[in-house]
Amino acid sequence: MMLSTIQLVALEKSYRLLNHGPTVLVSAQDDTHTGVMTAAWACAVEFSPAKVSVILDKSTMTRSIIENSGYFVLQVPNLKQLKMVHALGMMSQYDAPEKLRQCGTELFNFPHSTLPAVAGCSAWLLCELISEPHNQQTHDLFIGKVLRAYADERIFANGHWKFDEAPDEWRSLHHVAGGHFYTIGHAVSVQEE
Amino acid sequence: MMLSTIQLVALEKSYRLLNHGPTVLVSAQDDTHTGVMTAAWACAVEFSPAKVSVILDKSTMTRSIIENSGYFVLQVPNLKQLKMVHALGMMSQYDAPEKLRQCGTELFNFPHSTLPAVAGCSAWLLCELISEPHNQQTHDLFIGKVLRAYADERIFANGHWKFDEAPDEWRSLHHVAGGHFYTIGHAVSVQEE
Repeated sequence: MMLSTIQLVALEKSYRLLNHGPTVLVSAQDDTHTGVMTAAWACAVEFSPAKVSVILDKSTMTRSIIENSGYFVLQVPNLKQLKMVHALGMMSQYDAPEKLRQCGTELFNFPHSTLPAVAGCSAWLLCELISEPHNQQTHDLFIGKVLRAYADERIFANGHWKFDEAPDEWRSLHHVAGGHFYTIGHAVSVQEE
Repeated sequence: MMLSTIQLVALEKSYRLLNHGPTVLVSAQDDTHTGVMTAAWACAVEFSPAKVSVILDKSTMTRSIIENSGYFVLQVPNLKQLKMVHALGMMSQYDAPEKLRQCGTELFNFPHSTLPAVAGCSAWLLCELISEPHNQQTHDLFIGKVLRAYADERIFANGHWKFDEAPDEWRSLHHVAGGHFYTIGHAVSVQEE
């Protein structure tokens, strides 16, 4: 069930969900499996039509699920999910078929969508894979067209993140290495002259 | 002249300079021009050989300089450069031939390199373009092989950022939109069990 605080984000503003460089969760499902993994290497690619990229290693099950299904979700997790974000990045579902249960990952669906979305995140981008065999094979690079974007209005509203107004547990995570991350910090602005 | 605080970063650790998703400056030069621009959409692509990606719009002069020369530098700027980082992203050298002077951008060279590097940044990745006409034309996506990486040891040493130990002016910038950025925040770690 979708929380009432989750709202649609206009597609032309959806790049702002990734613009500050957060570590994301990637989720997908095919006929037999549902996969969720952590990825630090995700990026906006185009404003309109909104496109995103994400690097997916050949060792991950989520990658093969996306190759099978042609769809994926990028979601922006937050500090209250730190332990889960780390666990989803350390464990492969090939080795641990019960990974999602072990990581405490709860899934839900958006209206008119069967894509698996991770509960408790700050924002979600529902994407259709733009199939590019060269990029996928040579660079592990997957490009998606954003079909719809959502955010929890407690942390992103009117096209802007509210990191300085919301409790710290909503801050996005920015991976360093191993179990080490930085949270996003404070807003700074240039005075227009 | 290179500051004595600037040190080589091992290539296999160079991804850590971008892993937390900072907004970067992209610089390059060909026979006639030197260009520097701001880019929020840069990302690591591979650990070894170290590769990076950056989205460069067709309207930018730096893009055409990179297409001409085959080389570029990605550098990680910091809070003390906020005004310059914003200005380098707002102005095109096509409209403002004096852009670099107007932005107060000071350049230097690393040893055995003629690539233009921006003084005062926290880290630098010297890259050779991996020519991919489809990605460049269709997605504005440029992929580079990292030839050498450097960081100022006052903010990155022994393979790790020191954002919580160094003065705040060294924090990386994470672009939102317009003149609005977030700085990187505080270190958080998962206890390994």
